[in-house]
Amino acid sequence: MEKILVKQLYRESEKYAEQMISISGWIRTLRASKNFGFIEINDGTFFKNVQVVFEEGLENFKEVSKLSISSSITVEGKLVLTPGAKQPFELKAEKIEIEGLSDADYPLQKKRHSFEFLRTIAHLRPRSNTFSAVFRVRSLVAFAIHKFFQERGFVYTHTPIITGSDCEGAGEMFRITTMDLNDIPKTEGGEIDYKEDFFGKETNLTVSGQLAAEAYALAFRNVYTFGPTFRAENSNTARHAAEFWMVEPEIAFAELQDDMELAEDMIKYIISYVLENAPEEIEFFNSFIDKGLKERLIHVATSDFGKVSYTEAIDILKKCGKEFQYPVEWGIDLQTEHERYLTEEVFKKPLFVTDYPKEIKAFYMRLNEDQKTVAAMDLLVPGIGEIVGGSQREERLDVLESRIEELGLKKEDYWWYLELRKYGGTKHAGFGLGFERMIMYVTGISNIRDVIPFPRTTGTAEF
Amino acid sequence: MEKILVKQLYRESEKYAEQMISISGWIRTLRASKNFGFIEINDGTFFKNVQVVFEEGLENFKEVSKLSISSSITVEGKLVLTPGAKQPFELKAEKIEIEGLSDADYPLQKKRHSFEFLRTIAHLRPRSNTFSAVFRVRSLVAFAIHKFFQERGFVYTHTPIITGSDCEGAGEMFRITTMDLNDIPKTEGGEIDYKEDFFGKETNLTVSGQLAAEAYALAFRNVYTFGPTFRAENSNTARHAAEFWMVEPEIAFAELQDDMELAEDMIKYIISYVLENAPEEIEFFNSFIDKGLKERLIHVATSDFGKVSYTEAIDILKKCGKEFQYPVEWGIDLQTEHERYLTEEVFKKPLFVTDYPKEIKAFYMRLNEDQKTVAAMDLLVPGIGEIVGGSQREERLDVLESRIEELGLKKEDYWWYLELRKYGGTKHAGFGLGFERMIMYVTGISNIRDVIPFPRTTGTAEF
Repeated sequence: MEKILVKQLYRESEKYAEQMISISGWIRTLRASKNFGFIEINDGTFFKNVQVVFEEGLENFKEVSKLSISSSITVEGKLVLTPGAKQPFELKAEKIEIEGLSDADYPLQKKRHSFEFLRTIAHLRPRSNTFSAVFRVRSLVAFAIHKFFQERGFVYTHTPIITGSDCEGAGEMFRITTMDLNDIPKTEGGEIDYKEDFFGKETNLTVSGQLAAEAYALAFRNVYTFGPTFRAENSNTARHAAEFWMVEPEIAFAELQDDMELAEDMIKYIISYVLENAPEEIEFFNSFIDKGLKERLIHVATSDFGKVSYTEAIDILKKCGKEFQYPVEWGIDLQTEHERYLTEEVFKKPLFVTDYPKEIKAFYMRLNEDQKTVAAMDLLVPGIGEIVGGSQREERLDVLESRIEELGLKKEDYWWYLELRKYGGTKHAGFGLGFERMIMYVTGISNIRDVIPFPRTTGTAEF
Repeated sequence: MEKILVKQLYRESEKYAEQMISISGWIRTLRASKNFGFIEINDGTFFKNVQVVFEEGLENFKEVSKLSISSSITVEGKLVLTPGAKQPFELKAEKIEIEGLSDADYPLQKKRHSFEFLRTIAHLRPRSNTFSAVFRVRSLVAFAIHKFFQERGFVYTHTPIITGSDCEGAGEMFRITTMDLNDIPKTEGGEIDYKEDFFGKETNLTVSGQLAAEAYALAFRNVYTFGPTFRAENSNTARHAAEFWMVEPEIAFAELQDDMELAEDMIKYIISYVLENAPEEIEFFNSFIDKGLKERLIHVATSDFGKVSYTEAIDILKKCGKEFQYPVEWGIDLQTEHERYLTEEVFKKPLFVTDYPKEIKAFYMRLNEDQKTVAAMDLLVPGIGEIVGGSQREERLDVLESRIEELGLKKEDYWWYLELRKYGGTKHAGFGLGFERMIMYVTGISNIRDVIPFPRTTGTAEF
């Protein structure tokens, strides 16, 4: 007998009508009387449940009648279409095999639970409606990203997680070691002897794969990374995690304008993919998590993104008459309140802000002719503000070396990065998309802890 | 003017015939006489180069004539089909823009270099024929894996990289910390005070996402992980890296047989995808890296995989009359020489070996009725031996608890893993595929350092 996933059943119910099929899943609800009963089962492949009808002719009718929520069963039976009824079909059980019982203290009973509580049972929360939907969407968005770049011939590049260098020249990093912390090897001079460590040197968890991605863009023209990155920032906010995934495309023979076009295409592609492949989930989020979600997503997917320079943006903000918590002055880093005002109130659509003061951006961004700004861009979207940050990279060896010196970094730490400019360097650009931020954007979920299966934040690495 | 990738040009040259197009890339060879010259450029998107013809009418003819290998240029010109000639088309340059010069000491000149030398210039080696092909194939295989699972409705699950638990109950792990190694906080009793560390406890880099994947399989039925994993093993072999990527599907309502079918389908899908999407690369590997490669891959993609129990396999090996370096006895872990003999000489096709002695397998594998073996499977393939290892998982709470105790592990470390069996546990199974091992298999490359962009091994974390 064919084993069918619930998703297949909803997508192709005509095909299975009047057929004998086998469905497995976990019990969401069960009502039974003396002669018959109804079970809603869910197998996690789809947002909706399947209604199973069972009758007293069933061999283990009594046992089934008493099954607890979350017990797992396999049902064999005939699929009957029920046009006009609440659900489009039901499964008339001829056999119900009990796979595993669920103890009565199962913590996910029907009543609503707070997200805070659900985080303490991260191994069970994907069985709830909300988290089931969130993590299916997370999977779809990940695939949409791969599909987008692969269709365009980009080479997926696995940049290293363990690194001896600090890309941003700042960033708080996690140290990796196999040294015995109770007996750290020391040199004769009393310093830590990293030669004794696994890699023979200090190593950390990566904060970005960009520098390595640049090396690969200068071989494959268009590449992207998609992997975990880490920040040891001691910040306890709803938007920061110590471990998160990042997407970093890097394109050669390309300038800032190409970079912006790529970011716009990618964001639209992701949103369209989710709207098309997870319509039930988006309806649910729109009803129960964030009322304006669907409209906002459609708006973003169909708008032409705007563009404004940082200098113009500062002008607009200074002249708009609105009181901001953080005062606006040329040279400041834009705060979320400024970003949201620009994209939501002024431009009313997604907006690229370009050409930021060099002082607030990283050393590798390309210096503009004014010598004051760099060819950077941030993409701001209604609802959250910045979602993508990128730049054209400095391809001129002498300018890059001066910037490294200016910032007090060590040139020898970047020997291979500098060599990329010596051996056929080209104009190139790239950006980073925080993957979890994207998931939050398409689901309306406001805490990053609720879009990561087992989140790692300050003080927390459970499960 | 349309910017074209070299791959597009080869795939759709008819479309661009007699058109003005723009191609960018790095110079592989250049020959110039007084009146004209030829340049082969490569942009990394395709195995082959494009031949550019330039003549003295060109504005910067003299400058172009002297360009060094690996300089980057953008060529505008007309595409002319040249049927019958060595290359199917050539580009008649009307304009050549020099993007970046390459210094004369460019280390990747035309002569052959050893793979060992090329590892020391890992930032440049992707520009060589071999590594360009390897890393394009790596990208394609990664996408094939996502495509395979997504088409089957599997949910891609990001299991944590930073973990407080040790999945296998063994395994040498990397410690993660933000503590000052020069001044490690101690408790009053003189022990390391992990409460002062970033996560408030001891944390390591994951060796496997399996336990977390099981939690998600028991919510979504079918899931897979695909992410980096780490082993702090001090082994300096051609097959081990400290950081590597792993694919771990996990399926609920499934037994060992389902697991084997899934593994067989996946391996065949990956190989077929590469044969179809990278035929030029496979031809190259087959000619220059491993003569039997293509035949072996086609054989695997079209064979019905065999199946034999561990006990039967031991019998076969004992009776075969061949002298092995490691003597064969029931209870031993199969060595590569045994594995290769079974798959290459005895069965002459890919082979699942099932039901291994429990003593040589992990605690979570399902105990068979004989109480001596577990429902494990290894997939052996001609050429290398084991490529996939998996098992049905122990879903019976009491049996699992006894196994944990038997092995001296702490039950409380596995509280949530045990709870999965309390709240509607089901039969389930899964396996792990070492991603790099798969890349080595489809390329014929024999050292894992040569299929990872920037490899991390004992004593080495350069770049």
